[in-house]
Amino acid sequence: MVNSCRDCTNCLKGEEQYCLKGNTLTYGAQDKDGTLTQGGYSTHVVVTEDFVVRIPEGLGLDEAAPLLCAGVTTYSPLRHWGAGPGKKVAVIGLGGLGHLGVKLAHAMGAEVTVLSQSLKKMDDGLRLGADHYYATSDPDTFEKLAGTFDVILNTVSGNLDRGAYMNLLALDGAFVTLGASSEPEISFPTFAVAANRRVFTYSLIAGLRETQELLDFCAEQGIGAEIEVIPAEKINEAYERVLASDVRYRFVIDISTLA
Amino acid sequence: MVNSCRDCTNCLKGEEQYCLKGNTLTYGAQDKDGTLTQGGYSTHVVVTEDFVVRIPEGLGLDEAAPLLCAGVTTYSPLRHWGAGPGKKVAVIGLGGLGHLGVKLAHAMGAEVTVLSQSLKKMDDGLRLGADHYYATSDPDTFEKLAGTFDVILNTVSGNLDRGAYMNLLALDGAFVTLGASSEPEISFPTFAVAANRRVFTYSLIAGLRETQELLDFCAEQGIGAEIEVIPAEKINEAYERVLASDVRYRFVIDISTLA
Repeated sequence: MVNSCRDCTNCLKGEEQYCLKGNTLTYGAQDKDGTLTQGGYSTHVVVTEDFVVRIPEGLGLDEAAPLLCAGVTTYSPLRHWGAGPGKKVAVIGLGGLGHLGVKLAHAMGAEVTVLSQSLKKMDDGLRLGADHYYATSDPDTFEKLAGTFDVILNTVSGNLDRGAYMNLLALDGAFVTLGASSEPEISFPTFAVAANRRVFTYSLIAGLRETQELLDFCAEQGIGAEIEVIPAEKINEAYERVLASDVRYRFVIDISTLA
Repeated sequence: MVNSCRDCTNCLKGEEQYCLKGNTLTYGAQDKDGTLTQGGYSTHVVVTEDFVVRIPEGLGLDEAAPLLCAGVTTYSPLRHWGAGPGKKVAVIGLGGLGHLGVKLAHAMGAEVTVLSQSLKKMDDGLRLGADHYYATSDPDTFEKLAGTFDVILNTVSGNLDRGAYMNLLALDGAFVTLGASSEPEISFPTFAVAANRRVFTYSLIAGLRETQELLDFCAEQGIGAEIEVIPAEKINEAYERVLASDVRYRFVIDISTLA
């Protein structure tokens, strides 16, 4: 996000991601002057100073880069829904978003569970800070964990059995899907939400205030994204590997290799 | 509700309505001894003392009776979702539940709007404490009120255009359906929830602590249900009138007429 109206009630609350007049995204969005935004893969990019954040000392630029998208996308709902000591957080999917969800929820003091299709990345999940790791391909998982979590972060963009996952929420638990689903219409069993006064909601990136807060938190806690740095000429190859889920957990392009 | 396990984590939090082992409802529910509960239309009813509340001085037994169901059902979500000064609450439907939602939200200091099919009951709505009253049969209503409310209490049990109503919520607004819907599966447009970080949720009656709190609040505020008291022999007639929505706003049976 590189701009917003900075004038509506949501912007004035520092939640520019929900700008009522529509914010301006970094990639291929219509800018205020009518041109298309060209993204950040460049040596320079001009944005208004209100949309610039400070990368704190001690945080590498490379490991900080994914924090500005996957980081804030997981940080914001964890804060909003009260992740911390005594709270149980589940993260569905251990990918680019999920691995940061695990690191951040753990750093906030929550008890963290990864819900992944298989146990393939279990060692990684535990190393990143998860306390528990379950395979969702095992139906016992859903029976064993019923009514357990205070927050579930759903990082999986595709369709999934929402009722089965929501049934894992404790009283007042929130099922938070990150980013809007690719499905225009959403559905689930009524009772999966009505029981335990559960909450069904979404979360979209974060505002500028919270983005800076996340960066400061990460520097303080020694948290960065798990990355693989590539030179610009490897972009096509990296793209294929992203499609094949063959990255742990984010590619970062070294822009100095553009020269 | 006349009993619950009083032992699970939800019961121990005073939220017996979400008892994990299943609470015992007053009417036709299976009691702990295997018999069916027989309801409250009787001169005496035996329940455990933990499920008895005190009707405060100054609150008539007749006007208090509907508070124990419609009252708590609206009070609990209003408290839970922070209705109060500076907050905008909408109530969908001005019936048995809705009229108490309006009275209570007004007494809590919120700015209250009724969303009703027509303007037929507008005078009543304003008298009960609503600040605004809109007809949902008028499409302008949905345009004019977009992004307005912090809480919407949906008291209408049937199907309705959830996306259109949710679009009326401001940032972090909650769309709360009272009681579980009669539809086993629920659906709505993804973006109606994702925008403004909205919350979709339900609320089922209330626990005992909150039920007593409501009664005390009503006595203090001079709030009772709007009722029509009938003798027991008029039950069948009253039932027909309920089906025809011809009651403002709850029938109360005078049990002394049973004799």
